[in-house]
Amino acid sequence: MITGLAHIGIAVTNLEEAIALWTKVTGGKLVHREVVADQKVEVAVILVGELRVELLAATSKDSPIAKFVAARGAGIHHLALQSTSAQPELDRLKSAGVRLIDESPRTGAENTCAGFVHPKSLGGVLVEIVEYDKP
Amino acid sequence: MITGLAHIGIAVTNLEEAIALWTKVTGGKLVHREVVADQKVEVAVILVGELRVELLAATSKDSPIAKFVAARGAGIHHLALQSTSAQPELDRLKSAGVRLIDESPRTGAENTCAGFVHPKSLGGVLVEIVEYDKP
Repeated sequence: MITGLAHIGIAVTNLEEAIALWTKVTGGKLVHREVVADQKVEVAVILVGELRVELLAATSKDSPIAKFVAARGAGIHHLALQSTSAQPELDRLKSAGVRLIDESPRTGAENTCAGFVHPKSLGGVLVEIVEYDKP
Repeated sequence: MITGLAHIGIAVTNLEEAIALWTKVTGGKLVHREVVADQKVEVAVILVGELRVELLAATSKDSPIAKFVAARGAGIHHLALQSTSAQPELDRLKSAGVRLIDESPRTGAENTCAGFVHPKSLGGVLVEIVEYDKP
């Protein structure tokens, strides 16, 4: 079952500048920072009230984030929905005719279990289904 | 003060199809629907847990949503941050050197008081500062 928002993912070109900008604009705090080697991104999480803003910077030119920025520019990259359990949710979506990027969840930032749904099935919106308990 | 997320705005090309899609994908419910004449959009709000997904369809070719879809395709349009009071927040951002679209808040969907910040100042992210109490 999808229970709400896990986080918003924002593609950025410079992580240090983005952290400074988003903490200034929102009054939020940097609560986590991590390199996710598998996805070739460095992640910084800004907590604004209960909202988690996940800033994503490419760590190589063939990172999905580098490709996104090259194609569309920096900006909102994905919407992560929180699920009680990722695999059954991905299975349910697939059965409903929704195209998936990940048929099985992978380990994402903050040690979460997460899989992406294809934006072509969701009106251009890249959705991540995330299984975790909010801290 | 910014206290969290008010909603996520998604630009869509067909509101009926988008409502059907997003309720199916998320298990959320349609809780509000409204034409905002001033902004030339029809809005439908899907509530997913505490997350409000605001689907936005243009009501005319010169609507900001029509222009967005023509330039970038359908997809995530803006991130609305909830503020205890919109005008002081916009004033604070302006003083901090952030470029605003609305120097004073306007009346938005669901009778909210809201103003937009320019994406050029926020790494390509269109942010709306919204003053309202979550229902």
